Amino acid sequence: MSLAHFHVEASCGEARAGELRTAHGVIKTPIFMPVGTVGSVKALSPADLVEIGAPIILGNTYHLYLRPGDELIAKMGGLHKFASLPMSILTDSGGFQVFSLSSLRKITNDGVEFRSHIDGSKHFFTPTKVIDIQLNLGSDILMPLDECVPYGADYNYTAKSLRLTHMWAKSSLEYFREREAKTLLFGIVQGGFFADLRRQAIEELAGHDFAGLAIGGLSVGESKAQMHEFLSLTASYLPKTKPRYLMGVGTPLDLVLGIANGIDMFDCVLPTRNARNGTLYTSMGKINIKRQEYAKSSEPLDPECSCYTCQTFSRSYLRHLFVSHELLALRLNSLHNLTYYLKLVRDARAAIVTGTYQSYLAKIMQLYPEEAAQVDNQI
Amino acid sequence: MSLAHFHVEASCGEARAGELRTAHGVIKTPIFMPVGTVGSVKALSPADLVEIGAPIILGNTYHLYLRPGDELIAKMGGLHKFASLPMSILTDSGGFQVFSLSSLRKITNDGVEFRSHIDGSKHFFTPTKVIDIQLNLGSDILMPLDECVPYGADYNYTAKSLRLTHMWAKSSLEYFREREAKTLLFGIVQGGFFADLRRQAIEELAGHDFAGLAIGGLSVGESKAQMHEFLSLTASYLPKTKPRYLMGVGTPLDLVLGIANGIDMFDCVLPTRNARNGTLYTSMGKINIKRQEYAKSSEPLDPECSCYTCQTFSRSYLRHLFVSHELLALRLNSLHNLTYYLKLVRDARAAIVTGTYQSYLAKIMQLYPEEAAQVDNQI
Repeated sequence: MSLAHFHVEASCGEARAGELRTAHGVIKTPIFMPVGTVGSVKALSPADLVEIGAPIILGNTYHLYLRPGDELIAKMGGLHKFASLPMSILTDSGGFQVFSLSSLRKITNDGVEFRSHIDGSKHFFTPTKVIDIQLNLGSDILMPLDECVPYGADYNYTAKSLRLTHMWAKSSLEYFREREAKTLLFGIVQGGFFADLRRQAIEELAGHDFAGLAIGGLSVGESKAQMHEFLSLTASYLPKTKPRYLMGVGTPLDLVLGIANGIDMFDCVLPTRNARNGTLYTSMGKINIKRQEYAKSSEPLDPECSCYTCQTFSRSYLRHLFVSHELLALRLNSLHNLTYYLKLVRDARAAIVTGTYQSYLAKIMQLYPEEAAQVDNQI
Repeated sequence: MSLAHFHVEASCGEARAGELRTAHGVIKTPIFMPVGTVGSVKALSPADLVEIGAPIILGNTYHLYLRPGDELIAKMGGLHKFASLPMSILTDSGGFQVFSLSSLRKITNDGVEFRSHIDGSKHFFTPTKVIDIQLNLGSDILMPLDECVPYGADYNYTAKSLRLTHMWAKSSLEYFREREAKTLLFGIVQGGFFADLRRQAIEELAGHDFAGLAIGGLSVGESKAQMHEFLSLTASYLPKTKPRYLMGVGTPLDLVLGIANGIDMFDCVLPTRNARNGTLYTSMGKINIKRQEYAKSSEPLDPECSCYTCQTFSRSYLRHLFVSHELLALRLNSLHNLTYYLKLVRDARAAIVTGTYQSYLAKIMQLYPEEAAQVDNQI
């Protein structure tokens, strides 16, 4: 069974290799989406993103709405044209940022009132407004307004929040259908850390015509083990026909474990944020380029990597740039970490297609032994 | 009359179009050298520098000596290899930085003691040590240790300093000849704001076999008018056969006026520093990209510019990146300003060759009317 915009080509256990079609191209899944919060993946140009082969990036609705404003972006021809981004763009619902960045938020059945983290100005997001914003941005994949419940929320709060999220999801879908048919609207599965609420959320959302389903509300403060427990459990309830997107996660290990559970799409600030902190992912594991041991190393950062950084510079020079606070360090490191993430999912896909995903998973887990130990009981 | 490494192809008034040959290529002069203080032109990659056509950049001896250290760079194969820079590299003498950045400096006949601005550690630069450092870096053009006298220094101090600078210049040249013949050592003309000392400096240096002569000690706090008065006066004494380098100057107007006075080479942090402050040079003059008026402009930054920034993005997007403090803004702006500077000197050269430099100069002066007014009495 396949949808017009998505089909699974091959699977290996629960892991799937698929193709997701948008107005801006075909995306081979599983895929990692670099985060371009305000219409720029930090320190990288659109040409860089094309060079490293990123077929889709994520933009943040909350940020773009506040600055420069979705109406301005619409006037400039949409986010693709405004930021000169040729690839597909998924935008989030703004819900997570409203709850994590803004102050004085007030939730009603109609939506959420919040104050801008930039200038304190008051704003109100409703399900339809959030769709309008994303249509103004010209996103390929839209997300409906949801409440991402904080870690530690009790059962009653979470259950009540879930009813609101579902009410908003239905309004979003209805409004989206009236306004637009060519792009894709996903549903978001919330339900905190309560198995029955997660199951209930999926049963509710599966009955509607969302183009894909996302798992929200993970990686919000819980332990690594609990995250993977709920990732695994939630993923197991998801319909197999639709693309599955794990929001805001995670490390390379999280990705390969997510893929093992049938996740098709990921986004996270980790590779770019870590790059700016000097933490770099390599085929030999994670390193911190600041370390004195790299001062005299004429070796490339990762001899197995094809990125400009690894093909051009030594660890010694990269360390020098980083400790000297040179701007170029941030760019070269970001370019490398994203290349690593994109290769990780590309190699995962190849392993799924050849039916060798379990051994690929085992290989990656060996690269991150400490982190793997934290989830060992889940595998 | 021409030298093995330099010849003047054409001139127009005092302005000259020449060719300067180093171990890393032929540089068409007049030329502007982007500043790559610690082995990186801030926010740009070597590939960017190649793309914008920079045939030579400047590295700072003082900075590279302190971090990562010239001996480390020598072990890594020299600065060209360490930083993956294919173009020619000129390194300064460190003198200017010792006097402007470090603390507790103490000058003796042997050299200058100073404390690192990074960690306060104590160091001693001698004329021969500064040559050794630059040979370790593998520079194409070396500069001898000099004292850049502060603005306001009196005649006696300046005259005494000049004797020391000349003593060091001779030691530098002797030591350089013993150690190396393939690269080029320039002499530095000091003498503050005293015409007879400037003249005396040139008479002294012209008697020695320096590969070129640099004018130091300008743009140190004097008025724009005084700077151009001494630039013009000093340049008029310089031998015509050697390349002439105006150190640490300046604005586009300073460059075209310098060229009118026969200067062949320039370096300055201005285009890259201004880029990071949002001040951009265009074929219509200087603009600040922060301004509200650009928020809705779908025009390119400069329609006459061929750089990636102008060919790809609108003023609106560039303003958005800048006000959002995005790292990409610093890179796109730097790429543009350096492209502007390189085009400025390339166009100047073309005008010299076609004998139309006076009208080119007039055209550029019209772009910067306020600044031009400050030097009007000099022209």
